Amino acid sequence: MLMKAKHVNKALEEAVPLRNPIKIHEAMRYSLLAGGKRVRPVLCIASCELVGGEESIAMPMACALEMIHTMSLIHDDLPCMDDDDLRRGKPTNHKTFGEDTAILAGDALLSLAFEHVAAKTRNVSAERVVRAIAEMSSAVGSQGLVAGQIVDLASEGKDVSLSDLEYIHVHKTAKLLEAAVVCGAVMGGGDVIEIEKVRKYARCIGLLFQVVDDILDVTKSSKELGKTAGKDLVSDKATYPKLMGIENAKKFAGKLLGQAIQELDYFEADRAAPLYHLAIYIAGRQN
Amino acid sequence: MLMKAKHVNKALEEAVPLRNPIKIHEAMRYSLLAGGKRVRPVLCIASCELVGGEESIAMPMACALEMIHTMSLIHDDLPCMDDDDLRRGKPTNHKTFGEDTAILAGDALLSLAFEHVAAKTRNVSAERVVRAIAEMSSAVGSQGLVAGQIVDLASEGKDVSLSDLEYIHVHKTAKLLEAAVVCGAVMGGGDVIEIEKVRKYARCIGLLFQVVDDILDVTKSSKELGKTAGKDLVSDKATYPKLMGIENAKKFAGKLLGQAIQELDYFEADRAAPLYHLAIYIAGRQN
Repeated sequence: MLMKAKHVNKALEEAVPLRNPIKIHEAMRYSLLAGGKRVRPVLCIASCELVGGEESIAMPMACALEMIHTMSLIHDDLPCMDDDDLRRGKPTNHKTFGEDTAILAGDALLSLAFEHVAAKTRNVSAERVVRAIAEMSSAVGSQGLVAGQIVDLASEGKDVSLSDLEYIHVHKTAKLLEAAVVCGAVMGGGDVIEIEKVRKYARCIGLLFQVVDDILDVTKSSKELGKTAGKDLVSDKATYPKLMGIENAKKFAGKLLGQAIQELDYFEADRAAPLYHLAIYIAGRQN
Repeated sequence: MLMKAKHVNKALEEAVPLRNPIKIHEAMRYSLLAGGKRVRPVLCIASCELVGGEESIAMPMACALEMIHTMSLIHDDLPCMDDDDLRRGKPTNHKTFGEDTAILAGDALLSLAFEHVAAKTRNVSAERVVRAIAEMSSAVGSQGLVAGQIVDLASEGKDVSLSDLEYIHVHKTAKLLEAAVVCGAVMGGGDVIEIEKVRKYARCIGLLFQVVDDILDVTKSSKELGKTAGKDLVSDKATYPKLMGIENAKKFAGKLLGQAIQELDYFEADRAAPLYHLAIYIAGRQN
């Protein structure tokens, strides 16, 4: 898994060379190569291998998912959105490059994601590439990341129900994780049943990811997280620990982990091992 | 041409229905359906028909180009960018919906552009769809619209050479117009020579478009333009009239128009008529 993340980092480094105009590429690379956990790319590759595909055919898609994730972080951190100063242990993009460049770096990463998949994917039928692009893009827009962020912004300072909270997390986090897993299986040549199984796995993982994030936000310091801790509490945002208590949130995380693992039963144990371990990693991560 | 623009407006209206979350879709529709000239979609469809394709097969791509164009207008108008209050005769997106929503509406339109092409294009081979997506996306990112905008922002208040000015315009305007024409021909089934011819036509049109824009900025009032006039002068931006004088700028426009029309000689006169008239329309437009 660590090795996969290293491959992803190398591919990302090559996907965004430092060229003219220098400033925009510096800004793109600053956030993209800041050493995130590469959860989405690794999920994508693991899912591709689960259905019998090779790492290389999923790599452009894996990189694209990280570009999109990074774009959403850069834009969400802006002063007019969540107004965050710290991300992945470093000053946020707009703190370093200014708001204008940060917005443009996000835009450039988003369009590069699609360009990268369309221009760099090899040994996959064009039909599957088009299908994966449709899946990935639907996880970003007004029914995906953007939907989650706009409802999240609207809910600040208000009483938020558990169903609102789930809406936010499904859209801000789970949909792109789901796209990562499904796109990996599409690129890898998965059939209808395989793709449905990994989609269900991904839905559990997506929710799990956010529940763990919320738990970490109330239990860890900023230094340990590499981003401003307790922020969700201070800004009065809804979180699972706040709505159901920290212990129930932890139980809920355990339940989601169990469901995710169950979906993997359908596959050969060897091939399913990376996704199995990824689920456990997501449940147990400390930052 | 007016009829084509009406078809585009209808297709755009259907592409972004007003659904939940309401606010983001209102913001997307506010700018997308604000009645622009639809130059890019019409160019795309005309180019598709030039090589023998039907309007319907290019329509999703045509809509996508307008979504991307609108996204770039929304983001460029933001206070941290060009800080514009008026666009297409109405308050800019962030003036109406707030900066956060304006940024997200742009992001959503950009991702919807790719989703729309990938999910809605019919009767075109997947190979051609992938190729068109690669072409379109390369016109947006750090070698396209974003490159133009970042260099434009960096050049404010500085002495700008004619070659810098051309860089800005090629990237901010010409590349997307070129993508519109090329993608239309790709979708329509054009061969290598046809695609090369329309690409050259598009390059002339692209530059022409910007030269005319600059001329209008110094010769028209805000009311006539539907956006803040004289803005480029006030903000000390480089423009063709400023660098070569208004009369030379007009001559340059005439030369570009001639070159564009020459490229159309290769095609049957009947089929080339719409692109011929579009070139003349772009040269002669008054707002």
